Amino acid sequence: MDNNRVYVFDTTLRDGEQVPGCQLSTPEKIEIAKELETLGVDIIEAGFPISSPMDFNSVIEISKAVSEPVICALTRAVEKDIDFAADALKFAKRKRIHTGIGSSDYHIKLKFKSDREKILERAVAATKYAKKYVEDVEFYCEDAGRTENEFLAKMVEAVIKAGATVVNIPDTTGYCLPEEYGAKIKYLKENVKGVDNAILSCHCHNDLGLATANTAAGVINGARQVEVTMNGIGERAGNTSLEEITMILKTHKDLNLHTNINSQHIYALSLLVSKMMNMPVQPNKAIVGRNAFAHSSGIHQDGMIKNRENYEILDPVDIGIPQSSIILTARSGKAALKYHLERLGYKLENERVEEVYQGFLKLADEKKDFTDNDLIVLVEGKLPEEGIELEDVEIVSSQSKGTSASIKLKVNGEHVTGKATGSGSLEAALNAVDQLINEKMNLDEFLVQSIGDRKDEGKVHMRIEYDGQLYMGFGVHKDVIIASVKAYIDAINKVASLKRRLAISA
Amino acid sequence: MDNNRVYVFDTTLRDGEQVPGCQLSTPEKIEIAKELETLGVDIIEAGFPISSPMDFNSVIEISKAVSEPVICALTRAVEKDIDFAADALKFAKRKRIHTGIGSSDYHIKLKFKSDREKILERAVAATKYAKKYVEDVEFYCEDAGRTENEFLAKMVEAVIKAGATVVNIPDTTGYCLPEEYGAKIKYLKENVKGVDNAILSCHCHNDLGLATANTAAGVINGARQVEVTMNGIGERAGNTSLEEITMILKTHKDLNLHTNINSQHIYALSLLVSKMMNMPVQPNKAIVGRNAFAHSSGIHQDGMIKNRENYEILDPVDIGIPQSSIILTARSGKAALKYHLERLGYKLENERVEEVYQGFLKLADEKKDFTDNDLIVLVEGKLPEEGIELEDVEIVSSQSKGTSASIKLKVNGEHVTGKATGSGSLEAALNAVDQLINEKMNLDEFLVQSIGDRKDEGKVHMRIEYDGQLYMGFGVHKDVIIASVKAYIDAINKVASLKRRLAISA
Repeated sequence: MDNNRVYVFDTTLRDGEQVPGCQLSTPEKIEIAKELETLGVDIIEAGFPISSPMDFNSVIEISKAVSEPVICALTRAVEKDIDFAADALKFAKRKRIHTGIGSSDYHIKLKFKSDREKILERAVAATKYAKKYVEDVEFYCEDAGRTENEFLAKMVEAVIKAGATVVNIPDTTGYCLPEEYGAKIKYLKENVKGVDNAILSCHCHNDLGLATANTAAGVINGARQVEVTMNGIGERAGNTSLEEITMILKTHKDLNLHTNINSQHIYALSLLVSKMMNMPVQPNKAIVGRNAFAHSSGIHQDGMIKNRENYEILDPVDIGIPQSSIILTARSGKAALKYHLERLGYKLENERVEEVYQGFLKLADEKKDFTDNDLIVLVEGKLPEEGIELEDVEIVSSQSKGTSASIKLKVNGEHVTGKATGSGSLEAALNAVDQLINEKMNLDEFLVQSIGDRKDEGKVHMRIEYDGQLYMGFGVHKDVIIASVKAYIDAINKVASLKRRLAISA
Repeated sequence: MDNNRVYVFDTTLRDGEQVPGCQLSTPEKIEIAKELETLGVDIIEAGFPISSPMDFNSVIEISKAVSEPVICALTRAVEKDIDFAADALKFAKRKRIHTGIGSSDYHIKLKFKSDREKILERAVAATKYAKKYVEDVEFYCEDAGRTENEFLAKMVEAVIKAGATVVNIPDTTGYCLPEEYGAKIKYLKENVKGVDNAILSCHCHNDLGLATANTAAGVINGARQVEVTMNGIGERAGNTSLEEITMILKTHKDLNLHTNINSQHIYALSLLVSKMMNMPVQPNKAIVGRNAFAHSSGIHQDGMIKNRENYEILDPVDIGIPQSSIILTARSGKAALKYHLERLGYKLENERVEEVYQGFLKLADEKKDFTDNDLIVLVEGKLPEEGIELEDVEIVSSQSKGTSASIKLKVNGEHVTGKATGSGSLEAALNAVDQLINEKMNLDEFLVQSIGDRKDEGKVHMRIEYDGQLYMGFGVHKDVIIASVKAYIDAINKVASLKRRLAISA
């Protein structure tokens, strides 16, 4: 056995799917499971078969659809649960039953109204019972984070002796500090007889924002399995996020630990999970947030442009993001401005850059978002006639009669009007724009932010793909649909502007 | 000096505001600064005065508006920067200049094209120069996370000798592991002569998801200031989040560390920052995410209902959230179902609960969201005639002609139609509903999720407040505006349903 290999146990489809509003249909679960296989996870926790007929069925269908990863089914330390799990796993090529019981005094006394001896007996009995069905049995000591190490070691030892191949040490309430959780794993490695006959596993929750750090502390101290979800989704504040812990191990080569994860698939799977499970990823989420690789402040941009290694330790390409972006705000320095001017095809003298920079500072103070068009106006004194301007948009959206949109644009100085339908307001409006410009853009990312009160003032970020390049568009309007149309046209103008600039340089 | 006091240095208005799309007007900054004062932060970093005229002006205005916290202004180790900062701070009752320079070889060689000796000289000179203006000078050793401890100690010692009162040890790239960052602080505490004449400060970035853990490791090892932002916003993956680190210190009483933060104001400030800075908080964000205190799985719900302490270590009331919610999904157990039945006024025999539970499991498998109405149907066999049903909605939204909405409802079996205008589609639609039911609801939270492609299928979560109680509503529709109206009506029906049930019990 490779002692430096950390096994990745993904529970997006079980612990992640427990979240209100995240429930998936079986075909959706199969699609995610296949992508998890491509990503290279070692174990997929596919469901909790006794909890509902759909969970039972999903475990069956995922078992059929996936061949490389181990398929795991959750149970309580109850025979009927284990029977259901074994039945649901019947088509799995490689299978695991995950059973367990509460180990902390809170659980033993308050939830089970029992005592330590009886709980230990139940733990051993459940492990042995599961062992009748499968070779690979994982046991969880629920609320291990708040269990005294001495009793925890007793339980871990007993279930390993009963045949458990993996023992899960969950910080169920997300309460542990990394030092404490690491010390717990170390204590078990040092004090449990036969501990090397099983793998210790970390299952951490994020209630205090420490799930990833606790899991890292666990593997540093000898655990060799991490239980994770994509984007860190999961009950309450969620679970350890797959992308964070795997990129920590990849980046910190000094730890000499490795996983089987093909990190270039991370970003695509993050988007898929976010979309299917209705769980938006906040812009400042580590690794997969929209801003994770964006730089805006002057000091940093200058450093970035001088040498990428100065400020970025992760290469966005490594996780499947095409490029890191530099964004202009009032905090941006001259180096960033110059970078963007060059990107737009302007090669200016230093003196002229200084002039444009002064104008930029004044203008940027007044605007939250600084577009390429703003930059062109600064350099050329006015916008060229080319480009698309939104003159009017009218949307009629009716539950009974469907949705249509009328759009008036000024395209290269000419007024045009179009009308289209769609399944929703936004689709209708974008279809109308496409008709008018006679192109169809691919929406790569689309995020509506509308938070707080009944006035739906919306801010829309949109990213479109054109000819292999990505273009960001922004739009703000008191009506979210109009804001979306504005963002779409902003992005299209960037495509047009780049084309034009290249034509001038050529 | 109280040696167990950890000072909270908030940089939401400086490092947080550097994020693309987050820029604030001066009045907005003043509003946030005043709320930070109420929250009890010790230091407000108000801006980087030389970077733009607006930043300069904001520091002046925040200095005038706030009296308790120290106001801090950022500079590079450049005299002109420091002159600007001192000028901007002239009205502050308590003031600090924050200056500094890169300490890692990456910065020294690649960015400054200099050597360690010259950088040390610049560090000392800048500190002394700032000292001419103010007593309280904080020095940052940029990229300290990647600086060798020996040289870092030399720099820290030199700037303390030159008069620095606080020395900031930033993990600029978010690269450190908690153990490593904690050891760095420990090394400085043990090896820097005169280290007790200054406070060491932690400024961590979240690129690997470790900012909070690194900051915690820092204070455990002797740092006494934490540099944080609300919701963890900041460049790229953001900064250490104020709510996480302060709640860690509050929860882990064994650390014997305390801050001046009045945690009951956290939630309100989180919402304010999210809204003003256009940075949505993901549902699974620790402490302040919408789901942070929501429980949906059967095993957990059962435990929760038996004893809240089983699963929750944080009391939502402590951070200003009225109550934690239990949500029904296919994963929910009998205990949760019973809890909700009782909430709705049904006290059923165990046998009848079992029957309803079987029906619930079947139905819950088919639906992502299970509403109170679904539960009533399960118990009573049908929905009572009362309640509001959406029959049709038609929205006309035009950039030039404004927005209006026509709504057809069935209210307690009677068809009614109304029309209203508003500044955006949503406001118009909700105004029309209000007119028809002759009540005005307070929107407490409103989140539109529409991710991915041009079909704007939207999922809307809405929380309304009525008579001091909160009610959640959900709506899904291919048109986001219609989804919003559905969510609003769903929430209103919960108010009505509760009223009715209470009337029956009474």
